[in-house]
Amino acid sequence: MRVAFWRGKGSAQRPLRLSLARLAGLAALAVLLGLVGCAAKVSPPPAPPPPPPPAELRDILTLPQDVAAYFDPASLDRPLLSSKEQRRFAARLRELHFAPWHRSAPAHARADALWGLAALKPGRHYGENLRPLEPTFRARMEALAQSEGYPNLMRPAIATANTSLRVLPTHRPGFLKPDKPGEGYPFDYWQNSALLAGTPLLATHMSADGAWVLVEGRVAAGWVPVRDIAFVDEAFMAQWEGLPLGAVIREGAPVSARFADEATPAPHLFTGRIGMLLPLLELGPGGVTLLAPAREATGQAVSLAVGLAADEARPLPLPLTPRAYSGLVAQLMGQPYGWGGFLENRDCSALLLDLYAPFGIFLPRNSRQQSRQGERIPLDGLSPEAKEALLLERGRPLLTLVHKPGHIMLYLGQRNGRAVILHDLWGLRTRSHKGEEGRFVVGRVAVTGLTPGAEIPDVVRSGLLLPSFDAYTQVVPEADTARK
Amino acid sequence: MRVAFWRGKGSAQRPLRLSLARLAGLAALAVLLGLVGCAAKVSPPPAPPPPPPPAELRDILTLPQDVAAYFDPASLDRPLLSSKEQRRFAARLRELHFAPWHRSAPAHARADALWGLAALKPGRHYGENLRPLEPTFRARMEALAQSEGYPNLMRPAIATANTSLRVLPTHRPGFLKPDKPGEGYPFDYWQNSALLAGTPLLATHMSADGAWVLVEGRVAAGWVPVRDIAFVDEAFMAQWEGLPLGAVIREGAPVSARFADEATPAPHLFTGRIGMLLPLLELGPGGVTLLAPAREATGQAVSLAVGLAADEARPLPLPLTPRAYSGLVAQLMGQPYGWGGFLENRDCSALLLDLYAPFGIFLPRNSRQQSRQGERIPLDGLSPEAKEALLLERGRPLLTLVHKPGHIMLYLGQRNGRAVILHDLWGLRTRSHKGEEGRFVVGRVAVTGLTPGAEIPDVVRSGLLLPSFDAYTQVVPEADTARK
Repeated sequence: MRVAFWRGKGSAQRPLRLSLARLAGLAALAVLLGLVGCAAKVSPPPAPPPPPPPAELRDILTLPQDVAAYFDPASLDRPLLSSKEQRRFAARLRELHFAPWHRSAPAHARADALWGLAALKPGRHYGENLRPLEPTFRARMEALAQSEGYPNLMRPAIATANTSLRVLPTHRPGFLKPDKPGEGYPFDYWQNSALLAGTPLLATHMSADGAWVLVEGRVAAGWVPVRDIAFVDEAFMAQWEGLPLGAVIREGAPVSARFADEATPAPHLFTGRIGMLLPLLELGPGGVTLLAPAREATGQAVSLAVGLAADEARPLPLPLTPRAYSGLVAQLMGQPYGWGGFLENRDCSALLLDLYAPFGIFLPRNSRQQSRQGERIPLDGLSPEAKEALLLERGRPLLTLVHKPGHIMLYLGQRNGRAVILHDLWGLRTRSHKGEEGRFVVGRVAVTGLTPGAEIPDVVRSGLLLPSFDAYTQVVPEADTARK
Repeated sequence: MRVAFWRGKGSAQRPLRLSLARLAGLAALAVLLGLVGCAAKVSPPPAPPPPPPPAELRDILTLPQDVAAYFDPASLDRPLLSSKEQRRFAARLRELHFAPWHRSAPAHARADALWGLAALKPGRHYGENLRPLEPTFRARMEALAQSEGYPNLMRPAIATANTSLRVLPTHRPGFLKPDKPGEGYPFDYWQNSALLAGTPLLATHMSADGAWVLVEGRVAAGWVPVRDIAFVDEAFMAQWEGLPLGAVIREGAPVSARFADEATPAPHLFTGRIGMLLPLLELGPGGVTLLAPAREATGQAVSLAVGLAADEARPLPLPLTPRAYSGLVAQLMGQPYGWGGFLENRDCSALLLDLYAPFGIFLPRNSRQQSRQGERIPLDGLSPEAKEALLLERGRPLLTLVHKPGHIMLYLGQRNGRAVILHDLWGLRTRSHKGEEGRFVVGRVAVTGLTPGAEIPDVVRSGLLLPSFDAYTQVVPEADTARK
């Protein structure tokens, strides 16, 4: 049972009680200060409570949420990188993409691969019922993970579904105390990363029940349900590595198998996502034929031909123009924030990782790694004003990352002399007039200035972004560009 | 980015501010009552805040959480039903289990099958980022559901994974306002029901992108990812219906395929759950061989032989003894509450549905339907004391359901003259000393008396269970038992 009421008496009474307390407080203060005579029984009316915070960031309401708006229309189709630079980037992305198939040992030592077990402290994590995890949980995870045998599998594999890399072999969540500000749903600390269908994997280790496999992919490792992957053989790998790659550029494009037997209806395999890479079998006038993986009942992978239209997939790398980048961002604008790829959404670093992939540019998984992935410009000792001036001066639109600890953003250009960024932002720290800490939740992909929320009284000044910026990163080192 | 601090200043300050307000309030009250002279600047110390509510229900701490403890040890192996009664029940369960394969028209008319679209009111539902769903969400769901063509599929199918029946073709949640007491995670209103692997289905309708299928199963209907089901042909259905059924009795037993080719390692298919029914191919001394379904890359089902030990699966129906029932309950005791089968957990009605299935007894999906599934004893006009007395008098342990609107419980027997029940309970309504409504979350399967939480000061008296009981249900009508 759950007991739910649309409007509880308790909450209706709250404002009244607060007003009484404030009234009483004013009167008492007067007594304590000795300012009021005994006859003074009437206090001034209490100050009205402050208005509720706005529902939306001013930046989102006033800045165009369209990346193309920050470019001169005449420059929209001008490539930001030479085709030689793009080919060089794409070769590296491709190598890293297939690298898990060429590994003879795990990339992660046991303690690294199974760090989730060590993080499981009694009473620290809360489950889906918002209560501390039951005492037997840790033992169950340890039995499933059978860490003493790591690695017990070492087989090349491939993701056959869009799925999640988990810190532990379970779908159950690990929240910190759910009533702490900024904790609880959706911050499941056992959600590590999204894993896109078609990603080459090294399956290093299997759970005791055979239901979960620990895998290593291009950007991350973690536990995945065995039914979301399939094992590949030499012939499969040879076919995939013998072809160029194509990039999905339409978020949500259905990927369906074409069978030679026309009588069999094309079954849906998985949903295309920006950032997904698949071998390119054929490039036609109306679109492309790609290879997609599917899992047979035996657990082996088969390779199936799938057709996608020209606006759904293209050969890798797509020329990096403002128009092309803007077209990808437009599809993700407003998409809910997804910690660790929760529900196939993206967090701040996954957004950039996936946006760069179709252009052949590799980014690593998390914000700190990304900020060290090109030429890093540290901001030590700079005032907020100096940081913004430096960004306006040296930032290259779509090619400069902006970092603060735990958050990564993309420089878009300027508007009325102020810098503008694209990012996927959870929230800004607030303190209410009652002193309660909370979050102003943005919770999605948005275009903002460098201090979104500065206009909101509850947003804590120290929680604003710009003062914490610690580095800019030129994805393409300036030296390289000068060399061309 | 997410901004998270382990200990915010705001929350640390809160208790202090409250104490000041209370202090001030007392002083002001004294002034208003004219009881304090002008010189009185010292107020009595404020009353200490009430102690925090206990972390656990007294009933859970004091009542044995073991069903067998409520039975005379000598009676533990005595069947509660005759084998004839059990066969009659099991025949009905079997017929209902396979019924979706014999339906030539959907069981649900369009408006019923697609009610989720009509329930989607602007501003009513919140997404995974705790913000109102984006305005485009409804249009996207309508385009996917393509309701004008319902039913566009009408193919027999089978669940090949433990999955969820969803109200809309999406994994995204639909919360009511997340800061309302008892709302937000985990109460996703688009989570309808768990669907166990091996359940025969009628797939009535497919989403526009081919990724989701609307299916009808034994107890519920809803949208399911197409990759979690497979289509069956005449031969498949004939094989399955030509065999007796077996029941999984071990929660979490891995179900793995045996291939004729011994070189192929047995791949994990899905996890066994209490309540799961599969065709029984062979009954041996050490266990059973069952048939399990698996999905081929084409979307067609194949039938695979799987072996389970004698303590993992048995022929249906298992003789209904207190020991057997108790053995099943023990595996689920403390399991987190799962609204609509969220994360493969159970809600109040799913618990009973799954516990009865191995004994061959069919229960429908929700608590109201369950309370009308046998002989219903209405409780109109009875006092709480009279209700308990009637339960102690007419209740049959393990065979009498207890109902209040929105909640179903199972009568276990008595302890010290008081009735004891088994149930899966989310929470009890509370009001704090500050007047704030909340929930005392139990959030799991437990054994309690009829008024759990009565000892907790914050629990609202009107939120206690017993006063709201409105019916008892004899699962086996008394007339039938008398007839035997």
